[in-house]
Amino acid sequence: MTSYDPLVCEPMEKTSPNEDADNRDPARPARPRTFPTREAGVRDRQPMDRSVDFPVSVVLPAGGTGERTGLQTPKQFCSVLGRPLISFTIQAFERVSWIQSIVVVVAKEYMDLMTDIIQRFQHKKVQVVPGGKTRHRSICNGVLALGEATREEGQMLAADRAKVVIIHDAVRPFVEEDFLYKIAMSAKEQGAAGAVRPLVSTVISTTSEGYLDHSLERAKYRASEMPQGFTYDVIHQAYQRCTESDFEFGTECLHLALQYCGTNAKLIEGPPTLWKVTYKRDLAAAESIIKETLSQSACIITGGSAQAVTLADALQKAVGALDTELDITPDLMGDNSKYLLEEWNFIQISVSHSCLSEVEAILMDLEAVNRALLHPVVVIWVHLNGLDELSVSRKMAVPAAIRDLASAAKLRNILVYGIQLHQSADTERWERSVLRVAEITSTLIRDRSPALVGQLLQA
Amino acid sequence: MTSYDPLVCEPMEKTSPNEDADNRDPARPARPRTFPTREAGVRDRQPMDRSVDFPVSVVLPAGGTGERTGLQTPKQFCSVLGRPLISFTIQAFERVSWIQSIVVVVAKEYMDLMTDIIQRFQHKKVQVVPGGKTRHRSICNGVLALGEATREEGQMLAADRAKVVIIHDAVRPFVEEDFLYKIAMSAKEQGAAGAVRPLVSTVISTTSEGYLDHSLERAKYRASEMPQGFTYDVIHQAYQRCTESDFEFGTECLHLALQYCGTNAKLIEGPPTLWKVTYKRDLAAAESIIKETLSQSACIITGGSAQAVTLADALQKAVGALDTELDITPDLMGDNSKYLLEEWNFIQISVSHSCLSEVEAILMDLEAVNRALLHPVVVIWVHLNGLDELSVSRKMAVPAAIRDLASAAKLRNILVYGIQLHQSADTERWERSVLRVAEITSTLIRDRSPALVGQLLQA
Repeated sequence: MTSYDPLVCEPMEKTSPNEDADNRDPARPARPRTFPTREAGVRDRQPMDRSVDFPVSVVLPAGGTGERTGLQTPKQFCSVLGRPLISFTIQAFERVSWIQSIVVVVAKEYMDLMTDIIQRFQHKKVQVVPGGKTRHRSICNGVLALGEATREEGQMLAADRAKVVIIHDAVRPFVEEDFLYKIAMSAKEQGAAGAVRPLVSTVISTTSEGYLDHSLERAKYRASEMPQGFTYDVIHQAYQRCTESDFEFGTECLHLALQYCGTNAKLIEGPPTLWKVTYKRDLAAAESIIKETLSQSACIITGGSAQAVTLADALQKAVGALDTELDITPDLMGDNSKYLLEEWNFIQISVSHSCLSEVEAILMDLEAVNRALLHPVVVIWVHLNGLDELSVSRKMAVPAAIRDLASAAKLRNILVYGIQLHQSADTERWERSVLRVAEITSTLIRDRSPALVGQLLQA
Repeated sequence: MTSYDPLVCEPMEKTSPNEDADNRDPARPARPRTFPTREAGVRDRQPMDRSVDFPVSVVLPAGGTGERTGLQTPKQFCSVLGRPLISFTIQAFERVSWIQSIVVVVAKEYMDLMTDIIQRFQHKKVQVVPGGKTRHRSICNGVLALGEATREEGQMLAADRAKVVIIHDAVRPFVEEDFLYKIAMSAKEQGAAGAVRPLVSTVISTTSEGYLDHSLERAKYRASEMPQGFTYDVIHQAYQRCTESDFEFGTECLHLALQYCGTNAKLIEGPPTLWKVTYKRDLAAAESIIKETLSQSACIITGGSAQAVTLADALQKAVGALDTELDITPDLMGDNSKYLLEEWNFIQISVSHSCLSEVEAILMDLEAVNRALLHPVVVIWVHLNGLDELSVSRKMAVPAAIRDLASAAKLRNILVYGIQLHQSADTERWERSVLRVAEITSTLIRDRSPALVGQLLQA
C-alpha cells in the first residue's frame, strides 16, 4: 500500500482579513532590548498606524485548575515547546507597545511558580497578584491591584491610571494586536466591549428529565469569548456594586457591567485564533500552531563558496515547495546579522572539513542576542562531501564533535542537527540527494525534536 | 537558558468513566479478516457484554466544503498520517459488530474520491450516495438510500431494514462504541436521542446594532452534538413531512423529529472526544491523538541473545518512563506472532552484523497480515556493536542497506529507522547510551516521520 495523500491541505489558518503580515505571527517575541538595530530588519514588525493615546492595562485571570484538560497541571502552566502556555499569552500582550501593564492573577500556591516564569523568560510589565476563590473574585483582585499600583506612585495617578482594562484568559495565547486595538477603542467609547464568535453547535434547552425542550435560532446568538475591555471606572464600579451571588456564580463581566453600570457592551466578532485551550488536544493544537509559525522561514548560510551557493539555490526551491521560505546569505555579519534577530532556523552549508567552527560561530552569535530565550532555535549543519571520499579518521571525528556541540547547545535551547550529503556527478542521483536534504531539513525544522539533536543524518 | 519543563502533564485525555480499556483506543482498526487468530490476543478487544438485537445503520453526511478550516480540501478528506479523516470515522463505526451498514453522503464531485478511499482502505459495510444542496437534503438522501437498499433485497426487508438510524458527522472520528450503544438504545426506546455537551462559552444574544442584549444561564442549555439516533420510522417521516424551508435552513434533526413526529429526543451527555474537526488546528489535534494512541506500546524482539535481553530490559524501564509500554519477546513466531496483529511499533535488537535479515523478516510478516493498511507501522532496528570496532567496510555497507530497505518499506506504509549503539565497559557511559536509545526510540515512535526513514542514528 502506498502512502495516501492525493489532496494538498493549504498551510494557513484563516485569519481576519485586515491584519498585516507581522500580526499573523502569534509566536513573535517582544522586541529584544539588547539589540536596537533590529528595528531596521526587513521582516521587523511595522508599527501600526493606529495609535492608542490612553493608558491600557491587562488583567489575566489564571487561577484555573485545568480540570477539563484531564491534566494534573493547570493548563496555563503546561509546557509548550519548553515554555509554559501562560508565558505565550503574556508575550502576546507585552509586544503591544500601547499596553502599559499586565496583572496576572494566580492561585496562592502558584505565586512562586509564576514569579519564576516571569524571571526566567524575562517578562516585563508584569505584576503577579493572588487570586480569589472564584473567577470574578480573581478578576476583581486584578482590577483593584491596577488601582493600587498607580495610587502608590502618587503624582502620576491622573495621567497613568489605566483608562481601559482588558480582561483576557491566560489560556488564549494567540490574541492579536489588531483585535486588542478594536476592543480597547470600543471599550473607551462604549464603556465595555467583548469578543464574540459564531456558535459552532446548535444550542438547545433541556427539560429537567433530560429531553429536548427547544433549540435556539443560531443566528440570534453568539458565543461570548475573550478578550473583553472596560473603562476602569465601569469594571471597578461593577465589582463594587455586585452581590456575593454574582461573585460566586456569575460568569460574564459584560453582564455585570450591564446590570450595575447600565453599560451596554459593544460585541465584536473575533478571529478563530481567539480560541481557548480547554482540553489536552488543544495543547497539541497550540503547539502545532507555534511550530508552524516558527518554521515559516529559514536562513541558509553559504560561506560564499560556489558549490555551497549552488546547493543553497537548489534547496531554496525544494524547501520552498515544502512551505518554508529560505533566505540565502553568505554570512551573518554586517547587514546580514539581521537574520540573527529574525530567524528561528539556520542552515549552515559547509564544504570544508573544519566546518563545525562555522556552526560554533552561529551558536555564539545567537547567544549574544539571547535569541533562544522564548523559542528553541534550530541550527542545521549541511556537510557537503566532495567526490573523493573522506579519510576514515575524519569521518569518525565529525559525528562525535557534532554530538558534543549539540549537547551543550541544547542546554541553551538551541537544537543542532547535521546532514551529510555526497557530491555526485550523476545528475539524477544528485537531485535525489538534494530533495532528501530538503525533506529532512523541513522535518527537523517543523518537529524541533530535542531527542534527535547531534545526529548526523545522511541524505 | 535551560529548557523549561518543571511540571509534568499527564498523558491521557479524560474519557468517560465506564468505558473499557479497548474502547479508549480511537485508532484501533477493524479486525483484520485475514488472520482470525487475532481473537486470542491478550490486547484484543473484549466483546461488549451489552448486545444490540436490532438492525442499526449509520448515515454519515460528508458534503461539507471545509470553509472554516481555511483549507482548500474539505476537511473530511484532509490527510491525517497518510489517510483521509473520513476513513478514521468510517473505521470507528465499522469496528462495531452490531452496526450493519454505513451510508456516506458526499457531494457529487467527490463521489469518485470517496469510492477510491473505500477501496484503498478496504472498508466494508459502506455505500456512497450523492449529497443534496443542504445538510438536511444530504441526510435525507442517506436515509432514503437505507430504505432502498433493503427494498431491493425483497424478502429480507422485514428482518433487515434498519430499526435505528445513527446520524453522525464525518469529521468526528473519535466516537466510541460505548456511546453509540447508548444512543442506539435510547433512540429505539424514545424514537430519538442525541449527544449533548456542556457549553464551553457563555451564550449571549445580541441586539441588531451589535450590543449585548442578554446572556443565557449556562446551566439550562447544552450544545447539541453528534451522534444522534432515530428509529427509521421517525427520521423517515420527519423528512417526508418537513417543509422546503426546513430543508434549506434547518440545522437540527432532533428539532424536525419533535416538530413533525412529536418525538421528544432523549439527550445524553457525550465525552469530549466527540468534538468536531472544524479548524485547521483541529486536524493537528486529531493527528496528535492518533499518534499518542499508536505510541502507547511497542514490542521489542531480542532474538534470544543474552546481550540483547539485557539491553531490552534496560530499554523497557527507560521507555516506560517516557509513557510507552514495552513488551519483550524473543521472536514473532508461534504465540508471539500475536504481536504482529496488536502492535504498531517493533524494535529489533541485533548484536550480529547480518542482522538486517531480521528486520526483513518482520517486514514480510507485517505485510502478510496487511498490518500497515490503516496506520503507518514503525520498525526500529537497534544495532548493538561489540566492544571491538567493526571493520570499516561493514560500517559503510550497513547505512546503504538500511536506507534501501527503508525506501522500499515506506511505499508500503512501514517506517524503518536504525539506531546504533556501542557496548561500553564504562557503566555510566553505557547507561547514558541506553537512555539515548530510549529517547530516540520514543521520539521516532511518536513522530512517525516519513522523512527520517532509513537513517542510522547514533546513541
